Amino acid sequence: MLWSGWGDPAQARELPEHLRKLLRDLLGVRAPHVPAATLESVRLPPVALPAPLLEALAAIAGAEHVRTGHEDRVRHTRGKSTPDLLRLRAGDGSDAPDAVVLPGSHEEVAALLELCARERIAVVPFGGGTSVVGGLAAGRAGFAGVIALDLARLDRLRSVDAESMVAEFEPGVRAPDAERLLAAHGLTLGHFPQSFEYATLGGFAAARSSGQASAGYGRFDDMVVGLTVATPAGTLELGRAPKSAAGPDLRQLVLGSEGAFGVITSLRLRVRRAPAERVYEGWRFASFAAGTAAMRALAQEGPLPTVLRLSDETETMIGLAKPDAIGSGGGSGCLLIAGYEEPPAEAGEPGRPAEPPAEAGEPGRPAVGSPASAAGRRGAVAAVLARMGGEFLGEEPGRAWERGRFSAPYLRDSLLAAGATVETLETAGFWAGLPRLYDAVRLALVGALGSPLVMCHVSHVYETGASLYFTVVTPQEDDPVAQWERAKAAANAAIVEAGGTISHHHGVGRDHRDAYAAEVGPLGVAVLRAVKSALDPAGILNPGALIPHADTVSDG
Amino acid sequence: MLWSGWGDPAQARELPEHLRKLLRDLLGVRAPHVPAATLESVRLPPVALPAPLLEALAAIAGAEHVRTGHEDRVRHTRGKSTPDLLRLRAGDGSDAPDAVVLPGSHEEVAALLELCARERIAVVPFGGGTSVVGGLAAGRAGFAGVIALDLARLDRLRSVDAESMVAEFEPGVRAPDAERLLAAHGLTLGHFPQSFEYATLGGFAAARSSGQASAGYGRFDDMVVGLTVATPAGTLELGRAPKSAAGPDLRQLVLGSEGAFGVITSLRLRVRRAPAERVYEGWRFASFAAGTAAMRALAQEGPLPTVLRLSDETETMIGLAKPDAIGSGGGSGCLLIAGYEEPPAEAGEPGRPAEPPAEAGEPGRPAVGSPASAAGRRGAVAAVLARMGGEFLGEEPGRAWERGRFSAPYLRDSLLAAGATVETLETAGFWAGLPRLYDAVRLALVGALGSPLVMCHVSHVYETGASLYFTVVTPQEDDPVAQWERAKAAANAAIVEAGGTISHHHGVGRDHRDAYAAEVGPLGVAVLRAVKSALDPAGILNPGALIPHADTVSDG
Repeated sequence: MLWSGWGDPAQARELPEHLRKLLRDLLGVRAPHVPAATLESVRLPPVALPAPLLEALAAIAGAEHVRTGHEDRVRHTRGKSTPDLLRLRAGDGSDAPDAVVLPGSHEEVAALLELCARERIAVVPFGGGTSVVGGLAAGRAGFAGVIALDLARLDRLRSVDAESMVAEFEPGVRAPDAERLLAAHGLTLGHFPQSFEYATLGGFAAARSSGQASAGYGRFDDMVVGLTVATPAGTLELGRAPKSAAGPDLRQLVLGSEGAFGVITSLRLRVRRAPAERVYEGWRFASFAAGTAAMRALAQEGPLPTVLRLSDETETMIGLAKPDAIGSGGGSGCLLIAGYEEPPAEAGEPGRPAEPPAEAGEPGRPAVGSPASAAGRRGAVAAVLARMGGEFLGEEPGRAWERGRFSAPYLRDSLLAAGATVETLETAGFWAGLPRLYDAVRLALVGALGSPLVMCHVSHVYETGASLYFTVVTPQEDDPVAQWERAKAAANAAIVEAGGTISHHHGVGRDHRDAYAAEVGPLGVAVLRAVKSALDPAGILNPGALIPHADTVSDG
Repeated sequence: MLWSGWGDPAQARELPEHLRKLLRDLLGVRAPHVPAATLESVRLPPVALPAPLLEALAAIAGAEHVRTGHEDRVRHTRGKSTPDLLRLRAGDGSDAPDAVVLPGSHEEVAALLELCARERIAVVPFGGGTSVVGGLAAGRAGFAGVIALDLARLDRLRSVDAESMVAEFEPGVRAPDAERLLAAHGLTLGHFPQSFEYATLGGFAAARSSGQASAGYGRFDDMVVGLTVATPAGTLELGRAPKSAAGPDLRQLVLGSEGAFGVITSLRLRVRRAPAERVYEGWRFASFAAGTAAMRALAQEGPLPTVLRLSDETETMIGLAKPDAIGSGGGSGCLLIAGYEEPPAEAGEPGRPAEPPAEAGEPGRPAVGSPASAAGRRGAVAAVLARMGGEFLGEEPGRAWERGRFSAPYLRDSLLAAGATVETLETAGFWAGLPRLYDAVRLALVGALGSPLVMCHVSHVYETGASLYFTVVTPQEDDPVAQWERAKAAANAAIVEAGGTISHHHGVGRDHRDAYAAEVGPLGVAVLRAVKSALDPAGILNPGALIPHADTVSDG
């Protein structure tokens, strides 16, 4: 992964000339004067942890798993938000941890937390490092030092229960490795967020991730049926049944806790049979309103495809749903992508009945048939989309989306290098409130940035509402971090004011912390603090993330 | 509702002679010597609350809404568990509240909680009073008195958002009233637990209820998208979007809190279009194992019917799935009930596309067609059930189940009066663990009771597991409450030991409290205590329910 950007440096690309021209002519973007820092030139604070504490950490995790080298520290500095990258590109490594510690077991994690609580060492649990909300920069005040607790060594698939369709994983397994390990059993998680290539299962759980195929496979929190959590106060073992009426669902308190309550050391996840076929197709709607109405019809009346995504007029025009073809013109109206992933029809296996045969459809049109067959579901979705005014565009737009589905973060690197400030932010709300939420965020970004390019898509739908995901591009000012902070504050305020949630799938971290406090109110914050005090009385876990400092929120 | 039993006394029935004979011959049940107490003869403790406190309560809720009469107090004494009824039938009203208070608004609830916290008055939130786990008998120790906070006056449907398909209700609305109010809008919740006739929406949420149509409509906690909760520390307002990554889902902390954290004063609930047709049918499987394998196939591969329920061999033989025909012989094997409830196909309404046409099926067999049509779904389910060894029995068993679907609690009254001890208990687990859980609970009940009749059914399924619901019938001993306690303790221990959850939908109350503590562990209990301390620092809310006393669980 690129230390100051996203993903595999081999995949980084120069922007094509037609896109450079578009940025220049449409937005007035110009290449920056100052070259980006090199990894070696990043300025790090001296290691604050004294040698005896480093030795105590090494006594638990092994000396080779306690690392204080320059590159290790740089690579664990903050996450992958736009200001995170801007600061690193400017050589600012001030948030670097003192050491990177890689435990090899639940017991080592528990022992490290006990040591750190006793010695007041702040601990930032670190999975793929892909936070885009400031989830990985710990506050140092009052601590002897900060460690990044990198879970990369906890990378095993522990067991597969093919009868219950539950797989137990360690938290440091990266998503592609999880899919590879499950594929050997003919299984899949079906969780494909944009961070797929790098993020870990523990991170998905801690941050309540939601993937591009959420319409078919659900959110990551829907997949979690059991968790083991190491905390400074002991171990939580949660999840004896898929669902229970035995009190509040404490799993739901760990999901979204962003490392502030404990460290997830095991996940029991619902798995599905791996799809035999994947088909993605495009539809055009006259307007964003018409397209969202069609999505709502599918979410409320069914059936849902596996992937369902709608770009607004601007995103369609720019072609952002097809990052590999961006700037080459996406056409008018609003592009909707629908995808279908279906398990193979297999007869005879116990408990695995074959699918009923799909019905024959009209020529040139997918059939309306059984819900359990791709062709049948595809036809039923098509019938709804056509009735709601959609124009079928065939599979080419779907293939273009599939090729580029994980490309947007790479594109951000190229845009930053070209002198643009680019950021993504997201929210969710109930259907009736979405138009107001959409307008409020766009207005806030325009108000803060002048005349940026603001694009939006809906990529997660529910019976009662949906998410909105914004991408904003604007010329970099001399202080791009200050520019970002201004825009971010305006967008956060607009979301809170318009009644949306401050995040549908990015999480809270530090960037959304104050807006989150407004969302759950002072009593909600008091509940979070009470839980944190019970599990992490010394407050060593990811200090400053998720939960506002006591002096910034009134508990009145 | 019968003060010492279930439901409308007009619906109570003498047991038919063939059933009396079965109880006598099979189990040795004999009519009890002692006649049941009358309402007037129930022994109540004197009202402990002094007049000034009663006046202070009246100053908030109105004098006519603070009731200390004998009948009001008897009718708010405990819930509807078997020992609750046995004690009342024996004239024991020792757990009666001092007063019944009926607030008329969120503000009155909040003011009452403030007063009660200040004056150390224990508060038991009271909806339908249908708890079967001891959820309504407050501990008195250390309190000036106990009030039942009856939410019956908070009985309005506040609003319907037909675009988001969200309805806002007050908590005291009984389920049949909720359905009636929604029917005027063509909508339904689809929540039909056995307590349907009496239970309230607030109670469903507080106790994580699950209804007989959970396969189609989900559990009640799946329906809750927003909550307002009055607590002694202030008001919580939760739920800005269907789903969010903004921290832990605090709604899930209120769901299942059983009145120990606060009083739910408003619920925003996902609604669906009311079904135009309801069809229920029967299938026979050779064994419980074969039937559960078929249910698992439907849960994991789809499609699911709206209702799915499987009786084990004993329950099938006794005919308990058809309470109106009980004892008349249910046949051999295991009876499975599948039900289909589908919204009407309506074209033209914006956002309400018509259903695609169902395909024609084989003669005499439902068609395999679109997922969105009843006939299509029914056919697809039928194909799976037949392939898994099911024998189609037609609609008569389904009609019998439908007629008797809310009858079992009435039957319990008749059995108690006839000299039988009868109880139901339930659990849930992952599919691979269900056989062990099933055997463990049956063995525990047999060990505790000699040779009781133990019946079981599965009525809630998930991709990764299912619930088990047991009914046990045995001759009453001289001290039937002690007999019940012995059996309950054995069943609880068996569930904990076999890895199941202590309740799938009845809740925790007092009867499951210690088993619940074992389930979530000492650190889980510490989290619950921390949350309670933040919301209810004086500990007035439903003391003794859900959360174990500090001195009974080690926090080590």
